[in-house]
Amino acid sequence: MSDQPHRPHDSVTLTRRDLVAGTAAAIGLAVLGRGALAQAAAPPGPSRAPGGPATPLGARAPHERPRRVVGGMNREISLTPLQDLRGIVTPSDLHYERHHAGVPVIDPGAYKLLIHGMVDRPTVFDLQALQRFPAVSRFHFLECSGNGESAYRGMRPDQSPQDVDGLTSTSEWTGVALSTLMREVGVHPRATWFLAEGGDAALMARSIPVEKGRDDAMIAYGQNGEALRPEQGYPARLLLPGWEGNTNVKWIRRIEFADRPFMTRDETSKYTDPLPNGTARIFSFVMDAKSVITFPAYPAKLTDAGWWDIIGLAWSGRGRIAGVDVSTDGGRTWSPAALEQPVLPKCHTRFSLPWKWNGRDALLMSRATDETGYIQPTLAQLRAARGSGTRYHFNHIRAWRVQPDGAVVFGLEG
Amino acid sequence: MSDQPHRPHDSVTLTRRDLVAGTAAAIGLAVLGRGALAQAAAPPGPSRAPGGPATPLGARAPHERPRRVVGGMNREISLTPLQDLRGIVTPSDLHYERHHAGVPVIDPGAYKLLIHGMVDRPTVFDLQALQRFPAVSRFHFLECSGNGESAYRGMRPDQSPQDVDGLTSTSEWTGVALSTLMREVGVHPRATWFLAEGGDAALMARSIPVEKGRDDAMIAYGQNGEALRPEQGYPARLLLPGWEGNTNVKWIRRIEFADRPFMTRDETSKYTDPLPNGTARIFSFVMDAKSVITFPAYPAKLTDAGWWDIIGLAWSGRGRIAGVDVSTDGGRTWSPAALEQPVLPKCHTRFSLPWKWNGRDALLMSRATDETGYIQPTLAQLRAARGSGTRYHFNHIRAWRVQPDGAVVFGLEG
Repeated sequence: MSDQPHRPHDSVTLTRRDLVAGTAAAIGLAVLGRGALAQAAAPPGPSRAPGGPATPLGARAPHERPRRVVGGMNREISLTPLQDLRGIVTPSDLHYERHHAGVPVIDPGAYKLLIHGMVDRPTVFDLQALQRFPAVSRFHFLECSGNGESAYRGMRPDQSPQDVDGLTSTSEWTGVALSTLMREVGVHPRATWFLAEGGDAALMARSIPVEKGRDDAMIAYGQNGEALRPEQGYPARLLLPGWEGNTNVKWIRRIEFADRPFMTRDETSKYTDPLPNGTARIFSFVMDAKSVITFPAYPAKLTDAGWWDIIGLAWSGRGRIAGVDVSTDGGRTWSPAALEQPVLPKCHTRFSLPWKWNGRDALLMSRATDETGYIQPTLAQLRAARGSGTRYHFNHIRAWRVQPDGAVVFGLEG
Repeated sequence: MSDQPHRPHDSVTLTRRDLVAGTAAAIGLAVLGRGALAQAAAPPGPSRAPGGPATPLGARAPHERPRRVVGGMNREISLTPLQDLRGIVTPSDLHYERHHAGVPVIDPGAYKLLIHGMVDRPTVFDLQALQRFPAVSRFHFLECSGNGESAYRGMRPDQSPQDVDGLTSTSEWTGVALSTLMREVGVHPRATWFLAEGGDAALMARSIPVEKGRDDAMIAYGQNGEALRPEQGYPARLLLPGWEGNTNVKWIRRIEFADRPFMTRDETSKYTDPLPNGTARIFSFVMDAKSVITFPAYPAKLTDAGWWDIIGLAWSGRGRIAGVDVSTDGGRTWSPAALEQPVLPKCHTRFSLPWKWNGRDALLMSRATDETGYIQPTLAQLRAARGSGTRYHFNHIRAWRVQPDGAVVFGLEG
């Protein structure tokens, strides 16, 4: 499937001319004849006097107040305001959070990373040493494996994209490839797993197959051009592109190579998926393809019938998004959305579809397909596969119901 | 030329094995034998007690204080700290500034954009109307046309990349394609230029060929996922990818189509390039290919001989960067640097080259080539073409001198 942008003119039976004319009419723009040109005088300038000077550090306009929603028993999570954002980059101060013992304060001058176990040269790296190796920078999403549970059970209509799916964000991450450090310490050929342990009070720890280390793992110290933020693991974290958030161990302090998984508390008491047949699935590392519509979505309200752009985000832990289909009739018919370039592997991809709302009930859905051919499942398909006890990996199709009054609510799948 | 990443092993006569062994030795890492494993115990954890809770809005680690340098008679410029940044995204609060009458405060609810002149339907758009059209998002650099004058004249050794070339930054910009608005208002076939006028007290105004409007111009209201920052034109600006910064008119309030350029004060008294033969070049819109090394560069100091990664940024207003060559001997020999993916058109591209410093004098240079085949000129070539009176478009090759003590100074071209 092509990853070139395309406008699905045919599938929604519109032409560019329709779109243009339709939009003008629908928006009720001040479309003036040439005789009325005098009325279209330049708007009054806001500034008859000079404005403020340049500053060492910028700030948002006072009218703009995007905020994470903080949740959890111990305020251990915060959610990215997906409905307020455009493009694919998440501003670093709005990146979602999930921690198990709060955000530690780590002095970068005292920071150390130990790599040991089945290696030839056990080594302690300080931050300067890590930053002296050749660096790589990559755009990747992160997503908490528990993201979207309220789309699976306990669905409420008055939830925003942030409320439902705000535990995902995208940054440009910079660091040293873990494969570089693995060569540096001489990992034994028989090593098959490594332990990644965080420097927070929870000593968050996960077992990771060594193949992921050799593939695209990195020790990241940069985020969106600058240093990692404290809640993202300052001064350094493990980054495992496409894998569930908790494996991307923050404040990384120790990596131990071994020939077996470590069966840590974090991967036996948590991050295991019970299945309908009474067994459980352990090590569900990869985040499968998923998409969410971010507009129209609660609490947005459509002010009139006519042209609106349906927009959203899609991503897959297995590579690039190949396509996103959008339905406005609860999944009976689907139209391919346009994908905003660049479409990057294991990264949020912005999609959009122009839609002429007829003013009646509509049920909006999006369905992502990734480059492996995997198709985002329906809620019914996911429930059949996973049963009622599952706590993670809720990547099924979401639905938003547009009501005749233009209000949009989080809706059951049609 | 390929835009795939590649490590120039041959050209600098190193193998990955050399690099790995060399780096360990050079950095003086605590490389321990297996018998010394006890000494390599896990570093003391910084957190024996829980850390802080999740927050609605994040903040930098207190140890990290990147800042713009403010300059100009009226504090009308600020420069991006290029030497502190990685990857390609510039955090929005560190994006460079250049304004002609300060930063106006504009109420987004009162904002209007008038499009008139040689059009069928003169129209006033408010911000909601602009945001209802199909949106596009693109990563693009911006650069002030005056960036780098101190590399052309008045060169001082104690200048950082920020001091010399900090008037360039990259963001992901979101907005409505100007071509969409041009269809909406019905631009006359005989219109060849448009005036773009800003809403600041300077009423900054430039004449732009209509082809650029039909190509990739946009009215941008988003920057790095969120609303534009005030100093970047909040709530909306013109974005002309690859064109000199001043034509990307901020706080855009009026666009007028005509069949001739408007010869505004801003393009006759400024932004015109005097030439050695006594004539002048007007309308130097495109920013030609350029590159800057951001490390090693003043005030960095190399602490020892051995492996260091030379990194920098390259960009071209004419499309993608095709390659960057790096010299460590003042331009006698050149080696191709690796380009970090994705390499995007009219966007900063990160390059890097591993370099084994021998502890002696070295003169570092970088030379960008873009996809049109244009090669960044030498200072001598640029001076021959432009003479001494020029004030803009200083895209010649820069040089950094590494001294035997490891100190790095901004150096004359060798």
